[in-house]
Amino acid sequence: MSDWTLHPDRALPADPATRPVAREIYETTRDLPIVSMHGHVDVAAFADDTPFGDPAQLFVVPDHYLTRMLVSQGTPLPALGVGPEGAPGLEKDPRAIWRRFCEGWKHFRGTPTRYWIEHELVEIFGITRRPSAETADAIYDQLAERLEDPAFRPRALLDEFRIEVIATTDPAWSDLAQHQRLAQELKGLDGTGTPGSARVLPTFRPDPLLHPARPGWRDDVARLATASGIEIGGYAAYLDALRERRRAFVAAGGTATDHGHLSADTTPLPDDVAAELFARALARGEVTAEENAAFSGHMLFQMAAMSCEDGLVMQLHPGVLRDHDPERFATFGPDKGYDIPVVTEYANGLRPVLNAFGHAENFRMIAFTVDEDVYSRELAPLAGVYPALRLGAPWWFLDEPDAMRRFREAATGTAGFSNTSGFVDDTRAFCSIPARHDLNRRVDAGFLARLVVEHRLELDEAVDTAADLAYHLPKKAYAPPSA
Amino acid sequence: MSDWTLHPDRALPADPATRPVAREIYETTRDLPIVSMHGHVDVAAFADDTPFGDPAQLFVVPDHYLTRMLVSQGTPLPALGVGPEGAPGLEKDPRAIWRRFCEGWKHFRGTPTRYWIEHELVEIFGITRRPSAETADAIYDQLAERLEDPAFRPRALLDEFRIEVIATTDPAWSDLAQHQRLAQELKGLDGTGTPGSARVLPTFRPDPLLHPARPGWRDDVARLATASGIEIGGYAAYLDALRERRRAFVAAGGTATDHGHLSADTTPLPDDVAAELFARALARGEVTAEENAAFSGHMLFQMAAMSCEDGLVMQLHPGVLRDHDPERFATFGPDKGYDIPVVTEYANGLRPVLNAFGHAENFRMIAFTVDEDVYSRELAPLAGVYPALRLGAPWWFLDEPDAMRRFREAATGTAGFSNTSGFVDDTRAFCSIPARHDLNRRVDAGFLARLVVEHRLELDEAVDTAADLAYHLPKKAYAPPSA
Amino acid sequence: MSDWTLHPDRALPADPATRPVAREIYETTRDLPIVSMHGHVDVAAFADDTPFGDPAQLFVVPDHYLTRMLVSQGTPLPALGVGPEGAPGLEKDPRAIWRRFCEGWKHFRGTPTRYWIEHELVEIFGITRRPSAETADAIYDQLAERLEDPAFRPRALLDEFRIEVIATTDPAWSDLAQHQRLAQELKGLDGTGTPGSARVLPTFRPDPLLHPARPGWRDDVARLATASGIEIGGYAAYLDALRERRRAFVAAGGTATDHGHLSADTTPLPDDVAAELFARALARGEVTAEENAAFSGHMLFQMAAMSCEDGLVMQLHPGVLRDHDPERFATFGPDKGYDIPVVTEYANGLRPVLNAFGHAENFRMIAFTVDEDVYSRELAPLAGVYPALRLGAPWWFLDEPDAMRRFREAATGTAGFSNTSGFVDDTRAFCSIPARHDLNRRVDAGFLARLVVEHRLELDEAVDTAADLAYHLPKKAYAPPSA
Repeated sequence: MSDWTLHPDRALPADPATRPVAREIYETTRDLPIVSMHGHVDVAAFADDTPFGDPAQLFVVPDHYLTRMLVSQGTPLPALGVGPEGAPGLEKDPRAIWRRFCEGWKHFRGTPTRYWIEHELVEIFGITRRPSAETADAIYDQLAERLEDPAFRPRALLDEFRIEVIATTDPAWSDLAQHQRLAQELKGLDGTGTPGSARVLPTFRPDPLLHPARPGWRDDVARLATASGIEIGGYAAYLDALRERRRAFVAAGGTATDHGHLSADTTPLPDDVAAELFARALARGEVTAEENAAFSGHMLFQMAAMSCEDGLVMQLHPGVLRDHDPERFATFGPDKGYDIPVVTEYANGLRPVLNAFGHAENFRMIAFTVDEDVYSRELAPLAGVYPALRLGAPWWFLDEPDAMRRFREAATGTAGFSNTSGFVDDTRAFCSIPARHDLNRRVDAGFLARLVVEHRLELDEAVDTAADLAYHLPKKAYAPPSA
Repeated sequence: MSDWTLHPDRALPADPATRPVAREIYETTRDLPIVSMHGHVDVAAFADDTPFGDPAQLFVVPDHYLTRMLVSQGTPLPALGVGPEGAPGLEKDPRAIWRRFCEGWKHFRGTPTRYWIEHELVEIFGITRRPSAETADAIYDQLAERLEDPAFRPRALLDEFRIEVIATTDPAWSDLAQHQRLAQELKGLDGTGTPGSARVLPTFRPDPLLHPARPGWRDDVARLATASGIEIGGYAAYLDALRERRRAFVAAGGTATDHGHLSADTTPLPDDVAAELFARALARGEVTAEENAAFSGHMLFQMAAMSCEDGLVMQLHPGVLRDHDPERFATFGPDKGYDIPVVTEYANGLRPVLNAFGHAENFRMIAFTVDEDVYSRELAPLAGVYPALRLGAPWWFLDEPDAMRRFREAATGTAGFSNTSGFVDDTRAFCSIPARHDLNRRVDAGFLARLVVEHRLELDEAVDTAADLAYHLPKKAYAPPSA
Repeated sequence: MSDWTLHPDRALPADPATRPVAREIYETTRDLPIVSMHGHVDVAAFADDTPFGDPAQLFVVPDHYLTRMLVSQGTPLPALGVGPEGAPGLEKDPRAIWRRFCEGWKHFRGTPTRYWIEHELVEIFGITRRPSAETADAIYDQLAERLEDPAFRPRALLDEFRIEVIATTDPAWSDLAQHQRLAQELKGLDGTGTPGSARVLPTFRPDPLLHPARPGWRDDVARLATASGIEIGGYAAYLDALRERRRAFVAAGGTATDHGHLSADTTPLPDDVAAELFARALARGEVTAEENAAFSGHMLFQMAAMSCEDGLVMQLHPGVLRDHDPERFATFGPDKGYDIPVVTEYANGLRPVLNAFGHAENFRMIAFTVDEDVYSRELAPLAGVYPALRLGAPWWFLDEPDAMRRFREAATGTAGFSNTSGFVDDTRAFCSIPARHDLNRRVDAGFLARLVVEHRLELDEAVDTAADLAYHLPKKAYAPPSA
């Protein structure tokens, strides 16, 4: 077997008439800076510029895309270093964890995890052997050596990866001190920016506060009160506190909110009903599942109304049944691969918000889905008429080559390109960001190339559109709407 | 940039092994006459042979596919000349409207609107420059000049487009005088037909009459009474009046009915329940939303029963949530781009009609969908067994190259080709008809060519099937079933 | 027209860059033995080694894929020899039935029936002319002659087709005597096996027993009692009897159960509720539709619990509305083409079983669907994390080239290959088995080849995966889980 390399044409269309055109289009976007407006890298990584630790901590333990696949093939989470202190079989040896991953490499065939990690290992870390039981230790040593090099610290990689701007996701009660410090300390990409303009942006994520039936909700409301400096005695103060925190996020460079609800329902309740429900929840915690759902839908409407005031772009990621296995959740916590998409309805769900604010100058919503049917049936038609709505990039399980292609095939006829958000990576694995953006640029180049070869688009239009999708549309989608 | 032309291979498959076969198949259907059995061109256009007016009136103002896209990018409807007299910002200058469209040309990339209009501009009107801010005025002038030429009037274009027969959509109370006049005045295609045989056919569309909760329902029932000459004092007379009007449509050459309900439900009510509900609605207008839905489903069943009597082919287009934005609806009226598809169930919904009439010799239903999932899951299996059911062509948002291909890929394995309706254009934009049929012939040729190249079909079979899809199947599907 | 032959590249990708790679991969799986772990060939065919009868009996009369297509085009079932004795128009002449099929050959274009029968006629029976009105009689004669040859008896074909193992589907009360006899009499493939190890395996199918509202349920419970030797006075004995019969299936070589429920719901009832419901159903047959649904979901949970005890792999095939036309059902019985897929929910439905047993060492479930949306949305995410779950092959209407490809495209990114069952043919038409497996090997080779050409997989990995999909995964999926 020859050396392990990344083929320059990888993820471009197989068809020999389309590939050269795709390559030509891709060449024009390959080196564009990365705009990463929706992600889950911890801001502390940048604030403290912490080294990434060992290979297992970098690639395996925190990546639930990856660990779930090994779990599905019979490896318990603790054997991968995942689990609370004292969990039976909890592996402490990073080399053993890394070896288990390499032994299971076969199971990742055809998955984006395989594609991303291959890119990372070869392109970032210079690995030249495929992972396997035989090569695991050698690769481990090579990675461990690289990780000691200061060039592989987060801030250095931010430049190396050509990341112009990156958003983090932060609880509504975050003090944003790290973002403020970063705004002072970080230069822009290529040193051309000036410190003071935000390169690492916070994103306002109020989910826990909007679901009064969630365990710990009252504690979170208390955190909100502390962070906002507003005593929360009732519903009006709660809204004020949220409003205040949104202002703080705007001040810290934030441009968006993020909402991960089970459904896309945005129906407002009458104010007095919402106030009574809130008061009851706060006082005695008595909220039914139905009330919880109704209140969270109501609050999405309120968030949209506040966006009209403060210009924060509203991101909606509905349709995921979180923590499908309660026993694993109890032991291992959230984000362990047990989040399962469900049928999601948007046409009626988004109607209240779109009717109220869908033509407002200062409102923008970006709607994501993990229910693919919705692209052609509901989201493309909605984004194709309401000025406030943008159709988000293929999200989560759909962030892989074939699903990205299906997205463009399903949405473009009705929504065109201009009504989509451009690429959004949605990752907590910092080192996968270049791989993810590069992959998307390749797939979009392939889609555009087919339109060119089928004489449905001119080449110059395709090149222009490719730059939009890779760079200009995400910048525009996440900028304050009326800016 | 060179001249703007239509590439002879446009919309044929990119793959170099398939394209030549697709071209060969397409060549055999390219010049077949057009059979346009479902459309929304106003009969008056033909009856009065009215010139098309200015370029904005021809291409922009009435085309809600087109205006919605510009709305989604921030251009208000009135700026496109759409809106009631006195609407703020209502543009009166057709040249300004045309310019706005040309400036937004980029946003149509990848959409069928772009494909159709390109075809129309180049092929019908001889335009050789791409629309843009710079070219807008020159194109406008060229179009305006052409539109004064009598060769660009509707009747002349009917021949020029090689339209053998075209159906319009008409309210149940239409007096059909224009259709009768046309039957006298119009020759068949190429002059081979004789006046007297209908070339412009009416289609019976009773939707407003079947929804007693709709505002204006009682006025419409009064119109039905007048048109039928039957006094409608109750449910029995209402059915008689509908029956009478259907007879008039048959006499005027009509071969089909058209039904655009929210759901595909066809459950009949007991006669006395239906009669009571009708009487109450007529007397006092008191009908709940649930009763309205139940009555409209009941009436679909009655329409099917009447089709068994008079042979009118029943077209069903369910699953669209009309007028999603009530404020725009109040200001601008229906058909402004705010109709959004929703999940649609057919297996249970069509069951009453298919159980009762699905094997009746004189019954045929053509079912359309804008919910793509339904093709492989429900509609292909149903059309693949019930002799009365044909699966309609990809409709509305799905009438574009990639969705057409997905339709054949999803439906053919289970329903074959013979259980589909062949192409149906469903347009109100007369000049787009040749573009739409041509596009479909190209896409179907591409699908068939792939089957040939994959040795799943012989070339002679593919050529025979292509002619079926383009010409013979629509003629057969819309002919009286037992003829 | 030249002789009718099977092209060596049939069903391989059209694209000229991918096809040679696909061919290379396919060559490595083409001659692998067939593992047919889910099918509906009658065990008697092997036990008695009965000749197949005439061409109409072999190809037309029992194949509801085929007859439904001719029904949809206007041929009544009796004209195809289907119907009870005395049914009006019941055709008795096999040659006339065969002729009708040949006359309708055109309607099968693009369907898997066409593909399979073409394979069977050419490859197994040496037919060299396409079916048509003109060739019908000559083909009939040729087939009839072949069918008299002992080389065309079931046992001979089992070797000829290189079937290593085949599962039948058997009622819970089957005495399994034929399976036991076969275990004594049949050698393994190529004579290498020894009699005594099962080559024809029973599959435990308890559906009728799990639906207390079904007509005949009490008779079936009586059959269960007789077969198990356990008097069924109540719910506990009923469970014991089921347990006993499962043991008998294991003893006869069975490795799996099969469950064809309307929904995927697996919610257990409290034991006393289930017991009361069972007792009432047994005593007086009073069970509502809701209770029937609840009890059948409850019993799926019980079946899963029993699988944890006895290791039988649990196959679930939900989501089909059986016998859509009650009048045809009354006249012609089940399995006549009137089974229609409906929307099917898995994420919540399977939750009780997966929460309880999804990580159990001795449990495995294989979940199938005829609702394609579920692949990417629900089943791939579930199979991608729960070790007990495997995603079944495209089933029924989806067992055709384009749907097989869509399955891999939709599921692989999230579930990879290792979490799928490998190919399962699900046929009652014995002679179609080689065609079906061959077709799947071609389509999977095509999918893998594209990954190779797109540099998302190395060729050696693709070859290894192809063998997994064709042979190793089905063997592994249907082996006792903890073996």
